[in-house]
Amino acid sequence: MPSVPAALQLDNLCVVLVAPRNPLNIGAAARAMGNFGVRRLHLVNAYSVAFREARSAMGASGLLARAEEHASLAAAVAGCSLVVGTTVARKRELQHPLRSLPDAAPLIQRAMRSSPVALVFGSEKRGLSRQDLSHCHWLLRIPTEGDASMNLGQAVAVCLYQLTRRRAPARITKSEEKAAAAAELERITALLLECLHASGYIQPRAARSAEEKLRRLVRRLRIPAADADLWLGILRQISWKLQQKK
Amino acid sequence: MPSVPAALQLDNLCVVLVAPRNPLNIGAAARAMGNFGVRRLHLVNAYSVAFREARSAMGASGLLARAEEHASLAAAVAGCSLVVGTTVARKRELQHPLRSLPDAAPLIQRAMRSSPVALVFGSEKRGLSRQDLSHCHWLLRIPTEGDASMNLGQAVAVCLYQLTRRRAPARITKSEEKAAAAAELERITALLLECLHASGYIQPRAARSAEEKLRRLVRRLRIPAADADLWLGILRQISWKLQQKK
Repeated sequence: MPSVPAALQLDNLCVVLVAPRNPLNIGAAARAMGNFGVRRLHLVNAYSVAFREARSAMGASGLLARAEEHASLAAAVAGCSLVVGTTVARKRELQHPLRSLPDAAPLIQRAMRSSPVALVFGSEKRGLSRQDLSHCHWLLRIPTEGDASMNLGQAVAVCLYQLTRRRAPARITKSEEKAAAAAELERITALLLECLHASGYIQPRAARSAEEKLRRLVRRLRIPAADADLWLGILRQISWKLQQKK
Repeated sequence: MPSVPAALQLDNLCVVLVAPRNPLNIGAAARAMGNFGVRRLHLVNAYSVAFREARSAMGASGLLARAEEHASLAAAVAGCSLVVGTTVARKRELQHPLRSLPDAAPLIQRAMRSSPVALVFGSEKRGLSRQDLSHCHWLLRIPTEGDASMNLGQAVAVCLYQLTRRRAPARITKSEEKAAAAAELERITALLLECLHASGYIQPRAARSAEEKLRRLVRRLRIPAADADLWLGILRQISWKLQQKK
């Protein structure tokens, strides 16, 4: 059997920084990306002074110059069919499957072969919010002593070191078809939410937490990309019918 | 439970920074050490202002307060029976065996079991000098794109992440391992079918083939067992609402 390592599709790996505040950290993340050959950087809600400073410090030609700015995490990950949040916490977010970086790497590498994957880092102080997390399919934990938080640039470096390591080719099973992109999952979530409201499943005062729960529930399904339109059509029809009955 | 395996003798791992100039980098290296449970830090010929600043920024209680200062690399590694220099260069130092970090890790871990090992990092600008290198048994290279140099704190973080990794087989997290049983999928399919009929999505004469299509569609979702009841509840509610006042 040939043991040539499978090529890593690094263009399918997208680093997303949510609400970064410190220009040094944005620059450090960009430098780590450059070190490991990862070029796609999306910033969500970046403090604009910090971003400008980081950009000028790094020069205009690099990946920071080509970084995309987005107003929401949903927009930043819209094209990605796997969205992985990073955390140091071991127990906090029990709503999501939590994998340590070494275990997560082969899964992310496999997903990168067929479609874009987002690796999402929270802000320096607070990490990812519950709402941010609800956009993630699962969470990745860098194993640290006492679950202490890591410097942002260091966390990016460690993740990308592991994710760009070539290893023996993992077998792609047939069931590993391309998964629906985040934008499609978000449309499905929105339609389903309409149905739940119209059917009386959701009580108005619990609407916010219900939305996050539902978003996670949909992400745990792993809807194949090829089926997304069909599900959207089904939900549109049900939603339309439910609205008529109101 | 500590996340760093007890079998690793981390007290036998000593990080040596040669001629560091930037207090932020010293602090970043110390933070990375703390993250991975490595406590022995030796500084060689550190710019004293930088060291003082880093110390005061990190507080006096941490590992920077206990860091040893040495006037020469020879003194700093005197107690170590393996001295490994770090470099990003691939070809420069042909006098030394050069191992990439993943290959180097098991050798260093094995040496740590019996006696202290020094991991030596050069200054931010120039790396390790030829003279510094002559104190090393061999060199460790972090594989980077185009052999570009890494930020010091990030290089320390990446090395210590790899060196403190236990080599356990990858596991699937509990929460994702179990998929919904066929009987649950069938109940979900039946309820969904009711919804599709009630909403007018399915035309009566295509009912048979629609049912089969739907069954396959649901099976392609891979619904987690833990979520099956939730989906059943959602579908029951929607179906009930659709049946009302038909």
